[in-house]
Amino acid sequence: MGDEFNKRRGQQTIELKEPPRIISTFSIVGPKEGEGPLKHYFDEVLKDDTCGEESYEKAESEMMYKAIGESIKKAGLTEKDINYLFSGDLLNQIISSTFAARKFKIPFFGLYGACSTMSESLSLGALLVDGGFADYVVAATSSHFSSAERQFRFPLNYGAQRSKTAQWTVTGAGAMVLGRKGEFPKVRYITTGVVKDYGITDPSNMGAAMAPAAAHTIYKHFKDTGREPKDYDLIATGDLGRVGKKIANELLLEYGYDIKDNHIDCGDMIFNDVVQNTESGGSGCGCSAVVASGYLYKKLMTKEVKKVLLVSTGALMSTTSSLQGESIPGIAHAVSMEFD
Amino acid sequence: MGDEFNKRRGQQTIELKEPPRIISTFSIVGPKEGEGPLKHYFDEVLKDDTCGEESYEKAESEMMYKAIGESIKKAGLTEKDINYLFSGDLLNQIISSTFAARKFKIPFFGLYGACSTMSESLSLGALLVDGGFADYVVAATSSHFSSAERQFRFPLNYGAQRSKTAQWTVTGAGAMVLGRKGEFPKVRYITTGVVKDYGITDPSNMGAAMAPAAAHTIYKHFKDTGREPKDYDLIATGDLGRVGKKIANELLLEYGYDIKDNHIDCGDMIFNDVVQNTESGGSGCGCSAVVASGYLYKKLMTKEVKKVLLVSTGALMSTTSSLQGESIPGIAHAVSMEFD
Repeated sequence: MGDEFNKRRGQQTIELKEPPRIISTFSIVGPKEGEGPLKHYFDEVLKDDTCGEESYEKAESEMMYKAIGESIKKAGLTEKDINYLFSGDLLNQIISSTFAARKFKIPFFGLYGACSTMSESLSLGALLVDGGFADYVVAATSSHFSSAERQFRFPLNYGAQRSKTAQWTVTGAGAMVLGRKGEFPKVRYITTGVVKDYGITDPSNMGAAMAPAAAHTIYKHFKDTGREPKDYDLIATGDLGRVGKKIANELLLEYGYDIKDNHIDCGDMIFNDVVQNTESGGSGCGCSAVVASGYLYKKLMTKEVKKVLLVSTGALMSTTSSLQGESIPGIAHAVSMEFD
Repeated sequence: MGDEFNKRRGQQTIELKEPPRIISTFSIVGPKEGEGPLKHYFDEVLKDDTCGEESYEKAESEMMYKAIGESIKKAGLTEKDINYLFSGDLLNQIISSTFAARKFKIPFFGLYGACSTMSESLSLGALLVDGGFADYVVAATSSHFSSAERQFRFPLNYGAQRSKTAQWTVTGAGAMVLGRKGEFPKVRYITTGVVKDYGITDPSNMGAAMAPAAAHTIYKHFKDTGREPKDYDLIATGDLGRVGKKIANELLLEYGYDIKDNHIDCGDMIFNDVVQNTESGGSGCGCSAVVASGYLYKKLMTKEVKKVLLVSTGALMSTTSSLQGESIPGIAHAVSMEFD
């Protein structure tokens, strides 16, 4: 196995031998996201962002539960068919995920990758399917504007002013079902990120904190695979927003790669920042989750695009680490989704 | 691959084809743990539980960093040899893990499994090695009494009374390096838990909340593998403590398995509860991590025991979920460590 293994991996990248298929996805978003430019790509738009629950945390967990359950249904499966569930979210002790997982009898691996969780869960799920350990896996994540604001920033009622570099946490959950067979987009390459920290300390400027990680992972992906930016129709970073997207582009130029022509950012796309007052764009685990499960997957299914590199990005801080004067480390995981 | 796959798995259990080896471990504990019954099994006992840092959170991260680094050194490797690092901890947004990972250039998967993290990280690491995706992986976790008390319960200075069913969060970090070769204990079976919730709402009685998950995972392990309690020298649950251990035993009797004779609990063993005032025993991610990396691994290496089933157990709640009246879901992951 040693030789075969070495041929299939670079320093941070695995090429999957029997690329797993993304056989279904489900995306659910809040009312604000449902008014944004991508509104027609989501499977469900909530009329009420409390989801009928008595707290925003419970609402977020309910969205996650729905995304997981509906993605399984859309795949024509039942929960008994699913070998593993991978999920995580932004809330302390990932309660959105664990309380959603409680309603299923699926073996559960809890993750924490901040807003990189969609590509983290997709990476691990794909590795387990390719490794022969699972027939079907669900990868999922969520975020909620109001639960995130309360936990990370200010209670909404406080009416704090928002910085121009601030991002708007997406209310939404996305889930993907991976399987072995069928005519569906495949996961071919997985590039797992290392933690990068360029010393940013402003929690209202997450895009800048995550950009170095995004640039580094994309750079390693190209080096490890021998691919170039033009080999992808779209390189979709997670939630750098407008500020972070520009920084990531510039850092990649320093690494010798120009991705400007096909670089999109899920955070930059999900809102109309001017009309919707979302400053630098969307953020949160749910951001790249719903854009990937909604927009990107549907573009792949219709073959409008054939190769997408999804690079979800996470800021690995907590309110405690910020209060203790720590800078904000970032991470980014890349997954190539391909339909030829 | 389909048939081969199906032969090697039960409903929740995988039998690894080329069982990865645990080629080294490192355990580091605080002064109190260093006075307990297992003191001679730990690699390092801190004289000062601040680890020379200015906050308990930074101290915990420093312990994690040390455990990871030293386990790599003990394996005769450098960080360049490690393909993946899996780790998680109890702190909000797993800052102990992410700030430790920041000091390494190792592709990093962040986990959250509460106190089940040692067997969760070991499971995923072993699957990636067995699947041919990695030559070497590090699995690690940590906890710290003072950072956990501050975050989950009361500031220490408050001097709150402790309940008789309360457990004492272990100050410690454990890391294991997995590889493919050499005369070392192997990871043979991985049984991944589902979330179980029996409606316990008392955060001072975590053992009772986690016991149903432990019992269920152990039951599934026996069903899936055809093994029986007597096939193991030790069945080591994570941190049920005295109260939870008894409940788990009784629940397993209802499932038809009597594990009393070879059941130990890491939380029950790490302190002398009477002398050390630790009520129902130890808890925290670090509990099963240091007992497994210290005591259990050393007993396996000397072949005093040959087959151990490690069942780390996690309580999947947060302070917010408790304040919102939620019960406490539990999870348990089982990993068999065998040296024949």
